[in-house]
Amino acid sequence: MTKPDLVFLDDLAVGAEYRSAEHVLDVQQIIDFARQFDPQPFHMDENAAKSTLFQGLVASGWHTAAITMKLLVGSLPLSNGIVGAGGEAQWPRATRPGDRLHVMSKILDIAPSRSKQDRGMVTVECLTLNQDDEVCQRLVTKLVVFRRPQA
Amino acid sequence: MTKPDLVFLDDLAVGAEYRSAEHVLDVQQIIDFARQFDPQPFHMDENAAKSTLFQGLVASGWHTAAITMKLLVGSLPLSNGIVGAGGEAQWPRATRPGDRLHVMSKILDIAPSRSKQDRGMVTVECLTLNQDDEVCQRLVTKLVVFRRPQA
Repeated sequence: MTKPDLVFLDDLAVGAEYRSAEHVLDVQQIIDFARQFDPQPFHMDENAAKSTLFQGLVASGWHTAAITMKLLVGSLPLSNGIVGAGGEAQWPRATRPGDRLHVMSKILDIAPSRSKQDRGMVTVECLTLNQDDEVCQRLVTKLVVFRRPQA
Repeated sequence: MTKPDLVFLDDLAVGAEYRSAEHVLDVQQIIDFARQFDPQPFHMDENAAKSTLFQGLVASGWHTAAITMKLLVGSLPLSNGIVGAGGEAQWPRATRPGDRLHVMSKILDIAPSRSKQDRGMVTVECLTLNQDDEVCQRLVTKLVVFRRPQA
């Protein structure tokens, strides 16, 4: 038996929206991520960042994407997990220390698989918003979602 | 004076390719990333992963993206850093423990800005390949690149 709160392809509807919990970003998280994955001055050094395009420390776009994934895993309870075939991300606004982020996900499209009857491809738009509801990231991603198993 | 090995918009050519260093992925890195950003069984638990779609532990796609960024920062020495407005990623093949990754970047397009004379938008394709030269990620990203300052 599966948990009653898990979501299958059959349960999804185009237009449905899901709101995530919040994540508060700070300087240390930004620097820790950057040291490992995006070692550039505007992500690693508050002083050096002042004289860059960003005029201050900003999170790596990939850090914003990773936080978005964490918030998505917690807010879209798909039965088989969040399995993405890919996605398109834009970062219209930098994410900065102190930002309180949440994700609003919206189902854009549901396409049953032609070759595999047990699953479909679901297109989801995930907006990562800051405390002022400004969009820091827009991600459109395609997820593999399974049908509810037959009894 | 800027460092002689830094690359400006003027120095880029469509079709030019850049090869990165290598990054070897292991179980602990995969689990550490997943605990923070993508806490799902197929990224966190070798045993639980066996009964999932992936039939074993795989890295989060966002982990592959983050490693790609690290390799890109080291291999494409743009004068103003790697500043992306966004990108589209596909993960045609899972990244697994023991994979030795490198990134091949290719300039697809160079578009001078119409409104800002000092910069342009460069489209780059970044293929993240494993030790068998299989594509684990294809990323197409648009980067802001500055012109060489006038003397």
